[in-house]
Amino acid sequence: MTTNVPAYAAPAPKAPLERTTVPRRAVGEHDVLIEIRYAGICHSDIHQARDGWGQGIYPMVPGHEIAGVVTGVGPSVTRFRVGDRVGVGCFVDSCRECAYCRQGLEQYCVRGMTGTYNALDKNGEPTYGGYSTHIVVDENYTVRIPDALPLDEAAPLLCAGITLYSPLARWQAGPGKKVAIVGLGGLGHMGVKIAHAMGAEVTVLSQTLRKEADGRKLGADHFHATSDPATFERLAGTFDLIVSTVSAPLDFGAYLGLLKTDGALVNVGAPEEPVSLNLFSLINGRRTLAGSMIGGIAETQKMLDFCAEHGLGAEVEVISADRINEAYERVLASDVRYRFVIDTATI
Amino acid sequence: MTTNVPAYAAPAPKAPLERTTVPRRAVGEHDVLIEIRYAGICHSDIHQARDGWGQGIYPMVPGHEIAGVVTGVGPSVTRFRVGDRVGVGCFVDSCRECAYCRQGLEQYCVRGMTGTYNALDKNGEPTYGGYSTHIVVDENYTVRIPDALPLDEAAPLLCAGITLYSPLARWQAGPGKKVAIVGLGGLGHMGVKIAHAMGAEVTVLSQTLRKEADGRKLGADHFHATSDPATFERLAGTFDLIVSTVSAPLDFGAYLGLLKTDGALVNVGAPEEPVSLNLFSLINGRRTLAGSMIGGIAETQKMLDFCAEHGLGAEVEVISADRINEAYERVLASDVRYRFVIDTATI
Repeated sequence: MTTNVPAYAAPAPKAPLERTTVPRRAVGEHDVLIEIRYAGICHSDIHQARDGWGQGIYPMVPGHEIAGVVTGVGPSVTRFRVGDRVGVGCFVDSCRECAYCRQGLEQYCVRGMTGTYNALDKNGEPTYGGYSTHIVVDENYTVRIPDALPLDEAAPLLCAGITLYSPLARWQAGPGKKVAIVGLGGLGHMGVKIAHAMGAEVTVLSQTLRKEADGRKLGADHFHATSDPATFERLAGTFDLIVSTVSAPLDFGAYLGLLKTDGALVNVGAPEEPVSLNLFSLINGRRTLAGSMIGGIAETQKMLDFCAEHGLGAEVEVISADRINEAYERVLASDVRYRFVIDTATI
Repeated sequence: MTTNVPAYAAPAPKAPLERTTVPRRAVGEHDVLIEIRYAGICHSDIHQARDGWGQGIYPMVPGHEIAGVVTGVGPSVTRFRVGDRVGVGCFVDSCRECAYCRQGLEQYCVRGMTGTYNALDKNGEPTYGGYSTHIVVDENYTVRIPDALPLDEAAPLLCAGITLYSPLARWQAGPGKKVAIVGLGGLGHMGVKIAHAMGAEVTVLSQTLRKEADGRKLGADHFHATSDPATFERLAGTFDLIVSTVSAPLDFGAYLGLLKTDGALVNVGAPEEPVSLNLFSLINGRRTLAGSMIGGIAETQKMLDFCAEHGLGAEVEVISADRINEAYERVLASDVRYRFVIDTATI
């Protein structure tokens, strides 16, 4: 009952990705069949393809920034029709029963969300991600991409966009608020765009001033180099909210010192090493260090609608599928402005 | 113009406290002269007297949990009269101009609050704390102790009480909320009383079950030993709010795992060593690690009124001044239930 579809997969940890086919389940009652048009390359794709977190399931088809068009619907589907422009993000199912699922916080499902790839679905079958021509997803885990957003620019919103939108919304970035985005990469560049569109005064904190012109074009009001110790003196006590997108371990004490009293430093990057933290940097100024992980389905839809309304696509470099391995190296070298997106017609 | 008054002071770092006299300024325009009746012994008194944070000013008269009676007022004082029952907490001045002072968050004054002891006042004179018979304090940094609170039981509220009240109020302990208090000492026992009075379901997390009967009497609904690893499995994902009062470095990852999604772990203890933190413990469940430091003047008054309304005094062991050094040793050995209070008539 499954159909094999073309895909790019890592056959084993640390092996380059190569063209193959993977099975997609038959379209069920509540499923939509999506012809994938574009799939973003997220840093965590590389991490998982190379088994950085361990327990990877191989062959692995990465990709959780998926934009495409509905080409089939199950008999009970009510929310989508053939031809609709849709997106799929980091997860394709969750328990639907726990307090968090019921609140639209499926990403924090107590039984664990089902990842779009590198996971097992409720039937115990491995999930395969967006580096592929087609995918079958339950309509409740599918979102609508508004017409105003080109599909290639929309794809990265499904992870990078929601990862920044959710903490910016929750910690109330908006008029009168000073917001800093740490790191100007795939995540950070969406943070700048979204925080600016929300009305906040936006500062980029980047290692060097190399990307300053870009940052200002994206909507930053200020741009400072974190390699310059004077930055931390000059900006002490400045920000209401700092969102860190970097995966390298930061000197959190120094960044917390940039917050106002009652300010929050929210981490959406994922350093593998534990960080060292002096608790006085939280006690002084009643500061908060928090984390945030993507967003729920309803919030992802809200983010897409917000981005469409404000014309916020991702800055993308569209590549053909045969350049995925090369793109991985460039991502690791921070040599992309600001997101690679695979044209899945080339798979 | 100054008057010398009896006091107990540490003459030098690590030296025992001994009886001496210290100068108090003349009562100024906006000052009240307070006859101190009781002074609580806070763990941080010991720390500072022994120069644990460095840069101590000697002789040092500790004491920032002060309860007494007004015996004189300056000509422009409007808020207090002779005979009023009053308290003084951790600070006796601040800049009064910065955004935080104007918001009633004097404890986070950008120019730094003036500590009740071991600090220099705006004239550059050292401040001396509550282990003394009298103190002169600006009326704006003095609070009223309601008649319903005995002065000996009220004294510890000025630091221990507000230190717990402020985060419990800010993170909305109340009906329907599950709150854990880590550590059942001088701070923790007030946390249990206040959280219970606010209507929360209260759990004590203590190293052992030794104080379980006490904890339940203070208002705890549940009591668990943190030395038992099963505690952390059994209570995973349980709490909306955890307030940690301990100064020893905790395994924060383990405690964060006890929070619900969106839960907060607020640290009011002051570990000197940095802690190690895996950021995934914040990202999973969008959890918050925060700090909190005492409270502002208006909030301290609110706390005293709340405690009076609910009959929440501290559990105290009143001692004579000649037993201060012995009391210090007992505090360090956690041998007090739950706060020593000096009867300053014995100085």
